[in-house]
Amino acid sequence: MKHKIALVGFGTVGQGLCEILDKKREYLLSRYSYDFDIVAVSDVRFGTSYHIEGLHIPTLLKDAHNGSFTQHLQTWDAEAMIREAEASVVCELAFTDLQTGQPAISHCIAAMETGKHVVTSNKGPAALAYAEMKALADKKNVQFLIEGTVMSGTPVLNLAQSTLAGATISAAKGILNGTTNYILSQMEEGMSYADALAMAQDLGYAEADPAGDVEGYDARAKVTILANVVMGMNLKLSDVKCKGITEITTKDIQEAKSSGARWKLIGTVKNENGHISAEVSPEMVPMTHPLAGIMGATNALTFSTDLMGDITIVGAGAGKIETGFSILTDLLTL
Amino acid sequence: MKHKIALVGFGTVGQGLCEILDKKREYLLSRYSYDFDIVAVSDVRFGTSYHIEGLHIPTLLKDAHNGSFTQHLQTWDAEAMIREAEASVVCELAFTDLQTGQPAISHCIAAMETGKHVVTSNKGPAALAYAEMKALADKKNVQFLIEGTVMSGTPVLNLAQSTLAGATISAAKGILNGTTNYILSQMEEGMSYADALAMAQDLGYAEADPAGDVEGYDARAKVTILANVVMGMNLKLSDVKCKGITEITTKDIQEAKSSGARWKLIGTVKNENGHISAEVSPEMVPMTHPLAGIMGATNALTFSTDLMGDITIVGAGAGKIETGFSILTDLLTL
Repeated sequence: MKHKIALVGFGTVGQGLCEILDKKREYLLSRYSYDFDIVAVSDVRFGTSYHIEGLHIPTLLKDAHNGSFTQHLQTWDAEAMIREAEASVVCELAFTDLQTGQPAISHCIAAMETGKHVVTSNKGPAALAYAEMKALADKKNVQFLIEGTVMSGTPVLNLAQSTLAGATISAAKGILNGTTNYILSQMEEGMSYADALAMAQDLGYAEADPAGDVEGYDARAKVTILANVVMGMNLKLSDVKCKGITEITTKDIQEAKSSGARWKLIGTVKNENGHISAEVSPEMVPMTHPLAGIMGATNALTFSTDLMGDITIVGAGAGKIETGFSILTDLLTL
Repeated sequence: MKHKIALVGFGTVGQGLCEILDKKREYLLSRYSYDFDIVAVSDVRFGTSYHIEGLHIPTLLKDAHNGSFTQHLQTWDAEAMIREAEASVVCELAFTDLQTGQPAISHCIAAMETGKHVVTSNKGPAALAYAEMKALADKKNVQFLIEGTVMSGTPVLNLAQSTLAGATISAAKGILNGTTNYILSQMEEGMSYADALAMAQDLGYAEADPAGDVEGYDARAKVTILANVVMGMNLKLSDVKCKGITEITTKDIQEAKSSGARWKLIGTVKNENGHISAEVSPEMVPMTHPLAGIMGATNALTFSTDLMGDITIVGAGAGKIETGFSILTDLLTL
């Protein structure tokens, strides 16, 4: 059976996914018997393309580069496309407001209500409305898959849910935001906070408005997702205490260094015999701690388990191809 | 359906598995709908017990402690038990000679020939005869699962095969033997090689004959398994160059330390555009390298992938409960 994929949002992640799918089509078919068509794409900047027999991927990528779709145009907006297109799965990859989770939450609801699976790297629906999303998915007998929401394609959610099946996870703790880790790494090399932030923005790690990263909001959303998805809690964003890195000075960093330690922005969620605590805050970790050696934009997460002790996974936390890969992972899971 | 489990070998791993299964019975049933009976156990020291409706696990554990089984005794040896017992899966956990892979290879063949799945943490069958085992499993429509052979329950094989599905792995590199890593860590603290080895033996990390660990043979078997299982090669043990840690002196270690580096026994397998290389040898890694910080009996493995760059997983490499957990993981996969 050919999977019919609809994409909402055709920015970095959507384009990364299409590059991978186009390049790996033969491999996915021969190795995993995975066959697909991209039948629909809707993006606020480029318009909506739809054809039941599939769109031509190189043309989509070229059209995005030129600023406007040219194939099989439709007047549908994203939500109309989600409801009307004959697709088996909707990949929700549009920009989302982390305060409200919109428009991603409405998109996910529209997809599941019309019997389509949802795959998303958007943190909004999972961080703000995981229980509702999961309940709707169960009711409609579809899947709601979100591997890319935490550490992009580094498979932390699948690790916890499938490969660690049978073990009980009592804590998750890690470096969940690459931008702030990059800034702290640069400051250790002697750069000021302002210069390090400007460099992170130049490299595309940080947004023009960097608050989501430097105030810890991005990490807080990921902690909330880990709590709810991996540890079966029902936390809201506001249940997670949150402090960013904006008050850390070059002097703090040098003082830590001379005492054999290093500042890291750490996200933690713990369940100690039913007592739940969750927070994001800068911590001075000793150089002997496994998280101390994680430098630059890399992420790392340690799960504490009953049967296996601590298991740590280290990998990319963002990136066009990396996040595109997270979507592919979920598509193969379907 | 109740899974009917037969165990061959009731040493550390078999007992660890039974402790977990007994303790988690309710949890496995409610969370994963996994229901089971241990119907047969055969151990060269304790004899063979078999009952189609299941054996009493606490009695098995007590019997092992006392040196002899007492429940539903049979005259079968291990291979007869494997062929005759009505079981759906055989867990092969007996001691195995890494030169010949026996008796584990015969046990696995007997199980699969009689239509039973095989789960094993024994490196012999996977390192010496993976292609034959896999072919027989496919022919008989059963599974041959071996998560515990590399890094015990730390899920490296499942990570590579399921959660990294879609990515191509071009290299695997890591610290695959806890005993040697423990010895090197102790030597850095000032202990001599002989004292560090004796301490590893006291702690149960190293065997009375430590050659399997310190000459690198254990790591070599794991490199061979990674090459064949994860990277689709067809290597023999002898294709993997192998050097252990016996020539490393305290002086070498201190010299490395003063130049900002650390000796580690590293196993590597690489596929560079079809050029395959595989070896185990001590390497002086810079302190900034992610593997430098892995101390004591902990293991770590980095996969280099096309889509995700490097992904590293760090966790226990051995242990009663940890290896028992690897078997549980595979049982849940079935």
